[in-house]
Amino acid sequence: MKTYDVVIIGGGPAGVTCAISAHMTYPDKSIALVRKEEISLIPCGIPYVMHSLTSVDDDIMPDKLLSDNGTDLIIDEVIEKEEKILKLGSGDELAFDKLVLALGSTPVTPPIKGMDKNGVFVVKKERDYLVQMKEQGEKANKVVIIGGGYIGVEMADELRKDGKEVHLVEMQDTLLPFTMDHEFGQKAKEILESAGTEIHVNCRVNTILGDGEATGVKLSDGREIDADMVIISTGARPNVTLASNMGLAVHPKNGIWVNEYLRTFDRDIFAIGDCAAKYDFFTGEFSNVMLASTAMAEGRLVGSNLFEIKVMRKFIGVLGSFSTKIGITAFGTSGLTEHKAREMNLDYIVGQATAVDRHPGKLPGASNLHIKLLFSRYSHTLLGAQMHGGDSVGELVNMLSVMILNKMTDMDIDNLQIGTHPLLTASPVAYPVIGAAVDAIKKWYTYIPKRTKDDAVQGVSQK
Amino acid sequence: MKTYDVVIIGGGPAGVTCAISAHMTYPDKSIALVRKEEISLIPCGIPYVMHSLTSVDDDIMPDKLLSDNGTDLIIDEVIEKEEKILKLGSGDELAFDKLVLALGSTPVTPPIKGMDKNGVFVVKKERDYLVQMKEQGEKANKVVIIGGGYIGVEMADELRKDGKEVHLVEMQDTLLPFTMDHEFGQKAKEILESAGTEIHVNCRVNTILGDGEATGVKLSDGREIDADMVIISTGARPNVTLASNMGLAVHPKNGIWVNEYLRTFDRDIFAIGDCAAKYDFFTGEFSNVMLASTAMAEGRLVGSNLFEIKVMRKFIGVLGSFSTKIGITAFGTSGLTEHKAREMNLDYIVGQATAVDRHPGKLPGASNLHIKLLFSRYSHTLLGAQMHGGDSVGELVNMLSVMILNKMTDMDIDNLQIGTHPLLTASPVAYPVIGAAVDAIKKWYTYIPKRTKDDAVQGVSQK
Repeated sequence: MKTYDVVIIGGGPAGVTCAISAHMTYPDKSIALVRKEEISLIPCGIPYVMHSLTSVDDDIMPDKLLSDNGTDLIIDEVIEKEEKILKLGSGDELAFDKLVLALGSTPVTPPIKGMDKNGVFVVKKERDYLVQMKEQGEKANKVVIIGGGYIGVEMADELRKDGKEVHLVEMQDTLLPFTMDHEFGQKAKEILESAGTEIHVNCRVNTILGDGEATGVKLSDGREIDADMVIISTGARPNVTLASNMGLAVHPKNGIWVNEYLRTFDRDIFAIGDCAAKYDFFTGEFSNVMLASTAMAEGRLVGSNLFEIKVMRKFIGVLGSFSTKIGITAFGTSGLTEHKAREMNLDYIVGQATAVDRHPGKLPGASNLHIKLLFSRYSHTLLGAQMHGGDSVGELVNMLSVMILNKMTDMDIDNLQIGTHPLLTASPVAYPVIGAAVDAIKKWYTYIPKRTKDDAVQGVSQK
Repeated sequence: MKTYDVVIIGGGPAGVTCAISAHMTYPDKSIALVRKEEISLIPCGIPYVMHSLTSVDDDIMPDKLLSDNGTDLIIDEVIEKEEKILKLGSGDELAFDKLVLALGSTPVTPPIKGMDKNGVFVVKKERDYLVQMKEQGEKANKVVIIGGGYIGVEMADELRKDGKEVHLVEMQDTLLPFTMDHEFGQKAKEILESAGTEIHVNCRVNTILGDGEATGVKLSDGREIDADMVIISTGARPNVTLASNMGLAVHPKNGIWVNEYLRTFDRDIFAIGDCAAKYDFFTGEFSNVMLASTAMAEGRLVGSNLFEIKVMRKFIGVLGSFSTKIGITAFGTSGLTEHKAREMNLDYIVGQATAVDRHPGKLPGASNLHIKLLFSRYSHTLLGAQMHGGDSVGELVNMLSVMILNKMTDMDIDNLQIGTHPLLTASPVAYPVIGAAVDAIKKWYTYIPKRTKDDAVQGVSQK
C-alpha cells in the first residue's frame, strides 16, 4: 500500500492548482493526485474545440504541471475511504494524512423526452466524448443548443462561425439570464442574431424527435425545429456522492459543506472547486457559481494551508467574475446585477457610462465600451459591474472585481488614479469606469436633501 | 466686467475635467474657462499625429465638452490678479468667487547649442506648432529624437512606421529609465531596434549642426549623425509664473504648493494638473510625475469640492500609472520600480511570472505577458507593478494600480477571485498577476525561519 502525506482526488483546475500550491508550500511532503480520466482538459476552452481549435487535443491540460511540481499522478477511481485509507477501483489502496476532494461537477440533464438519441450531447469534460461531439458537429448541418448561459452562447457562436444553422433555446426571457441584466442579455442576443443564429427565448424543448438518430426538437409552444445535432448546456451539479459516502456533510444541490478555509467537518479533509459549497460574497447565502477561477483560488488556499493555516483569507464568499466574447464583442460581469440585487432585497443605485476605448476615437482598433455599475444606495460601496466592449473587457472586469472585493465606494473611484494610453484605453476624460461612478454620484446630489443657501455659505471654508 | 462664480485658467485635461465636474456638482453656479489657445489638443495623442492619425486636427479636444456642460469658454490670456478680479490680455476684466489654476507645463529645453535652427522641435501642445512639426516630419528623411521617455519612444515608433531613418538619443543607460526597471527599458530598446531604429544610450547631444537648417547632431562621444529634423522630448516643468505673481507659494521645479484637496495657501484658489505640486504615494515627498490621468483625478476632485469638501480623498499622493505601446507590445507600470525603491531606501521583495494571455495558447491573438511585482519585504503590501504583453496591459496596469492603492498584500492577491476567458485572458492556472504574487510568497517561505518539526505538529489543528 502506497502512503502519501497529501492525496488529492480530481484532476480539474482545483485539484491541479492545489497540488502545485501544496508542493510549493510543503516541498518535503509527498503528494499524489488521483483522477479517473486518462486525459484532463482545460474546462473553459471546451466550447472552442468546435471551431477555433483544430482538435480536442489542443485543449489538453498538460500533466507536466503535476510532474514538474513533485506530484505523482495516479489514474484510478476512488471507491471508498476507511479511516485514512482510500480503496481504488483497481483494487489498490492509498494511505493519506491530508485528503483534498476536488470532485468537480456533472452537467444537469433537464427532463426532456428522447435524450438517449444519437446526436444528443451534454457538455462533459471528457476527451473521448468531446472528440465524438466535435465529429458530430463537423457532420451536422443544423444544431439546436438548449440553454443560453455562457457555454450555450459560446457553442452557438462557434458553430455559427463554422457555417452551421444554429438554434439556441432559452427558458428565460433573454440570454445569460443569471449573471447579466436584461439589456446585456439582449445585446448578446442581437449579436448572435445578426450573425444568423436563431434565438428562441421564453421557450423550452419538450421532446427530441427522431428514431435512434435525433432529427429535431419539439418546443413548449408546439413548434418543431429540424436538427441533426442537439447540445444541452443547462448548468451543472456538484459531485457529492463520494463525500457523502465518507460521512461528510453535504447539501445535494449546493455541494460539500466547508468552512471559510475549505475544511470539511473532518479537519484532515478539504473540499475545493465545483464540488464544494460556495457562499455569496454579499449575503453569505449559498451560491451556485461554478468557475475555474474560483476553484483555483480555493485550490491555492488549501494547498498553502494543508498542515496549518498560513494564508489568512481576506475575501470570503464568491463574487462571480465572468467574461466571454460573442462575435467581436466581449462581455464581462462581476458581483451583483440589478436582477440579483432585487432578488436579495438589496438597496442600490446605478451609474452608467459609454466611451470609445481608444483616444482619439479615430485610432485603429477603437470600439465602444459600455459599463454599468451598481452601488449600495446608502453605504456607497460598489456591488456589481457589467460591461461590453472590446477585448480589454477581459482585464477590466478583473479590475472591477478588485474594486468590489476592496469595498471601494463611488467616491473612491472618482478619486482613482489610472493610466490611459491612446492605443490601449479610453481617454482619461471619458474613462468609463470613472464615468459610471460619477454618474452614480450625480444621482446622489439629486437624491440627498440640499442644504439651504445659508447652510451652504456657512459650510464653505473662508480664508 | 463679467462676473463668474468659478473661473478656471487653462484648457488642458485638468481644466476641462474640473469644469465638467463643477457644473455637475453645482449646476446653479456660473463657470468660465479661460485659455490662450484657439484650439485644445488631447495631450497623450500628440505623438500619434506623426503617423497613426491623418492630421493634427484628429487630435482636437472638442470644445463641446465645455459648452455641453454649462461652461463659457473665453479665449484670452490672464495677465494678473487683483483681489478677486483677473486682468486679461485683451484688456477685459473677469471677477470670480473661486479660481482654479490649471496652467499646465512647458517642455524643458536642455542646454544644447543650435536649438534655434529650423527643423528643431520640442513637443508643445499647440496646434499650429504641431502642424508645422508634422509637415517637417513628412518632408524629413532622417530624424534624431532626444530623450527616451514615453514621448520620445512613441515618436520614434511612429516615425519609423512612417518609413523614416530614426535615431533616438538617451542620457541614461536604457529607455524609459525613470518609470521602468532596466530589463523593461531593454525590451523596449530591442523592439525599436528590431524595427530599424538606431538607439544611442549613455549619450547626450551637445550640438545641433547646420546653418539655419538643422543638418545633424553632434553627440557627447564625438560622433555625428545626419538629420533633417530634431525632436526634443526631455521632460517638462510646471508653469508657475502666474501663480507666483499672484503671491501664491510655488516651488520652481515642483509646482504650486497645494494641500491634499488641491487648495493653495489662498482657500479660494485651487491648482490642478501639471502646474500643481505632486506628492509621492509612498513617501509623501515631491513627485515629478505629470500625467493627464492624474490631472483629471485632481480636476474632478476640485470640481466637486469648490464650495465645500464633498468628496473625501482616499488616495493621497501620486502613484504614476503609465502605459504605452511599442510596435505590437504594450508596456505598463504603476507605483515603484526596483530602481526607485532602492533610491527611496525601501525594503522590497520581487515576484515575477510570464504566461500566454489566451488559453489554450493555440488560440488566435495570443501573446506573452510578463509581470514583475514589488512587495514591501516585511509589510507584504504591493508597492509596484511592471509588465509587457498584448493590448490587455492597458487595463491590467489599472487593475494593479487599484491593488496598490488599496494596499493589498501578496496573500490577498493569492486569494483573489478573477474572471478568465480563453479568448481574452491567460488561463486561471497561469494568470500572471497571481503567479507573480505566489512567486513572492514562495520567497517568504525560504526567508522566514522555519518552525521545528515539533512546533509544526503542534501547529496543526487535529480533529
